[in-house]
Amino acid sequence: MDGYSKLTAELIEQIAAIVGEENCLTGEDIADDYAHDEMPIYGSHMPEAVCLPANTEEVAAIMQVCNKHTIPVTVRGAGTGLVGGSTPLFGGIVLCTMRMDHILGYDMNNLLVRVQPGVRLCDLAADALDKGLLYPPDPGEKTGSIGGNVSTNAGGMRAVKYGTTRDYVLDMTVVLPTGEVMKLGRPVTKASSGYSLMHLIIGSEGTLAIITELTLRLVPNPRENTSFILPFESIEAAIDAVPRIKLVGLGPQSIEFMERDIVDSSAASTGNNIFPTEVNGREVGAYILVTLDEGDEDEIFQRAEILAEIGDELGAYDTLVLSQPAEKQAVWDARDSFLTVIESKSELVDEMDVVVPVDRIPAFLRYAHDVGAENGVRMRSFGHAGDGNLHIYCCTNDMKHKEFIERSGRVMRACYAKCAEFNGQISGEHGIGYGKKEYLLEAMGDTAIELMAGIKRVFDPAGILNPGKICN
Amino acid sequence: MDGYSKLTAELIEQIAAIVGEENCLTGEDIADDYAHDEMPIYGSHMPEAVCLPANTEEVAAIMQVCNKHTIPVTVRGAGTGLVGGSTPLFGGIVLCTMRMDHILGYDMNNLLVRVQPGVRLCDLAADALDKGLLYPPDPGEKTGSIGGNVSTNAGGMRAVKYGTTRDYVLDMTVVLPTGEVMKLGRPVTKASSGYSLMHLIIGSEGTLAIITELTLRLVPNPRENTSFILPFESIEAAIDAVPRIKLVGLGPQSIEFMERDIVDSSAASTGNNIFPTEVNGREVGAYILVTLDEGDEDEIFQRAEILAEIGDELGAYDTLVLSQPAEKQAVWDARDSFLTVIESKSELVDEMDVVVPVDRIPAFLRYAHDVGAENGVRMRSFGHAGDGNLHIYCCTNDMKHKEFIERSGRVMRACYAKCAEFNGQISGEHGIGYGKKEYLLEAMGDTAIELMAGIKRVFDPAGILNPGKICN
Repeated sequence: MDGYSKLTAELIEQIAAIVGEENCLTGEDIADDYAHDEMPIYGSHMPEAVCLPANTEEVAAIMQVCNKHTIPVTVRGAGTGLVGGSTPLFGGIVLCTMRMDHILGYDMNNLLVRVQPGVRLCDLAADALDKGLLYPPDPGEKTGSIGGNVSTNAGGMRAVKYGTTRDYVLDMTVVLPTGEVMKLGRPVTKASSGYSLMHLIIGSEGTLAIITELTLRLVPNPRENTSFILPFESIEAAIDAVPRIKLVGLGPQSIEFMERDIVDSSAASTGNNIFPTEVNGREVGAYILVTLDEGDEDEIFQRAEILAEIGDELGAYDTLVLSQPAEKQAVWDARDSFLTVIESKSELVDEMDVVVPVDRIPAFLRYAHDVGAENGVRMRSFGHAGDGNLHIYCCTNDMKHKEFIERSGRVMRACYAKCAEFNGQISGEHGIGYGKKEYLLEAMGDTAIELMAGIKRVFDPAGILNPGKICN
Repeated sequence: MDGYSKLTAELIEQIAAIVGEENCLTGEDIADDYAHDEMPIYGSHMPEAVCLPANTEEVAAIMQVCNKHTIPVTVRGAGTGLVGGSTPLFGGIVLCTMRMDHILGYDMNNLLVRVQPGVRLCDLAADALDKGLLYPPDPGEKTGSIGGNVSTNAGGMRAVKYGTTRDYVLDMTVVLPTGEVMKLGRPVTKASSGYSLMHLIIGSEGTLAIITELTLRLVPNPRENTSFILPFESIEAAIDAVPRIKLVGLGPQSIEFMERDIVDSSAASTGNNIFPTEVNGREVGAYILVTLDEGDEDEIFQRAEILAEIGDELGAYDTLVLSQPAEKQAVWDARDSFLTVIESKSELVDEMDVVVPVDRIPAFLRYAHDVGAENGVRMRSFGHAGDGNLHIYCCTNDMKHKEFIERSGRVMRACYAKCAEFNGQISGEHGIGYGKKEYLLEAMGDTAIELMAGIKRVFDPAGILNPGKICN
């Protein structure tokens, strides 16, 4: 990780000539935001320059310069990451893709869309909907860039039915560290044509190549969707219902869980009381929120009846139908507020997004909350019951930075060990970046990390792309 | 590709000690089948030994021996490949996985199954159905092994709705060329945890590591499914209907096409006349075969009405419902017979399984048949209309081997160039193996192949695993 050069005035001039003066920022023109992502606990590192190219050709030209002079380049989209993945640890250039924000066109015969990587998820989703199409991946952070989503294989709410971002990438144009442009994948849905370099790039967090264009698969937008709240006595009872809901073939789009404490915090903070705290005189301990989407209301109605029957059998206090637009809006506003509420109520925050087998969710949550309590760290959690992806936050208002890092570090290490015991994944959708490197090594072992590092060297022998992340 | 050692009597003894005498074949005990797969046009190469290990530990022990002595090892499942992928080009050992044929167990809470790689697709599918579960990937060759399916990312009929094999692999145990055992992936459906070595192994045709165990995702078996034949005047008219069927949200499980000539050949050969050749006095030129699967008959009935409307609008002669078990069986028997009929009617056969964007299917088929005619090669085709994956066969009864290779080679090269022009993939599900290496290089370019070769060296520096395939 040594041997990088500093950006000279001459090199900055060369970069500015490629992207235009106004798109090459240096010195005090660089906003502090470029020094970190949305999890500032992993530290702040100012780049020497930020450049905002407009297209593949400009990215290629920048990389030719940086390759020649061994300048580190950290790719950044909207900067909504949570693991320090786009933090320029070694200075150099932050290559921000947010000017590459064009939706390049739809192919309605083949149900696909071509986009630049700086298009925000929310903008793509809305634009596709206007054409009657759904872009299924739906991570909680809607303002993230599609390039970032692909680089972390973002998952989100609808993964239960539709899978993750990986499943929607058909082809990509990438720029290699040398500046060479390469097309990976093809705009078709089947491939058995050599090693899938494209699937290797997906989830590689900008360490192997820079994505400059993407072709994504879309699906017809289901004409109807309805959400249902099932309140339960406890998280154990709530999660117990999930396998049955999946097994009976209702095809739910999403199954989210929320414990009472986070619902209370959100309600207190936002005034949104859509989740009932008492049903028929019984205190609610946890909820699952199920969404069904189908071709028409009748189909949903038929499936909703089955859902209510299962809920009843398994101890749900009720099956509340959210059929009105205002109710739907309120429930998803509440769901979307959880992270904001956690962040606004806490001075220091760190997070995990482990994935465990669905039937291990209650045991894992109990363990995490117990370990948190032992270490004096406040724990908050919510997540995707349908796929076992848990968002667990370590929070504090009464600790110094160093003490928090120490204590939350103990909590994390214990939780990741438990995750390994349960045969889970370190991260479901946020990635490894800088913040979870040590946990990845522990989970995967030396050999797997050496293979990853070997692959990194094949793509990037000088180590100039996003150094210090994942396995390098 | 040099520097391999020959198997000595002593090494054979060591291997036999690992797998048992009866599972280590040499000399005349080696059946000729082990020298090739089901596309013998790519040549026959006898291995020095065939061994049939029973589990991960035995595979690891074999690889330790072969790694130490630089013995090439070619992994083989059921041998149903079509690209020479399991042909031992450099002799050495054929490591056949067909004794590792146990279904190790189901996890009904998390809807998954653990299997050894030698389980045949048909056996897994039937066993899962007994439990009310569907293993969605459904390649035409039902007797292939699951390990082979994963190694080629097999696709099949139901990919339109369910995707390909890649989408159902959650974790795998692999043995590296050194004999080290590694676990990749986890039995959960979301992951953003470093480079996906698992997705790299999927589709790598036994060149990077040996798969010895798999956890696969299952889905609840849809309670009802019904197929529909839509006869059209021509292949163009038939394919024109496909985007509309997909766009309207019917969620078809599969959309297959067949031209009249292959239907006639099949009917003449098998006596199965399920496809009508005349409808209301009009001669049929091509068919699409649509299958819908849903929770109940009512849902299918509703969707069938929409299908019939679209068919009518787009010039289908009719929408024939195959609701009786005997009719369903007959139509799928006919579909499954196509390759067998082609093979039985031809002395020499070679094949392509390109993928093109759906709306390019008619133009590609016309081109392939024209180029075939120009070169005196008989062309036969059928395939997956819903995803653009075409099975195109070059056949002859009146050419010598050398002449056929020359002429079909010309046809292939022209077709692959057209495929590139149409932005398609070389292979959708059969793989590259030995037979399509030159076409892969042409399609991907030097840089991509060098990256693949670099990755190969990272996993297998001595080049002992399945040498001579894909990129090495």
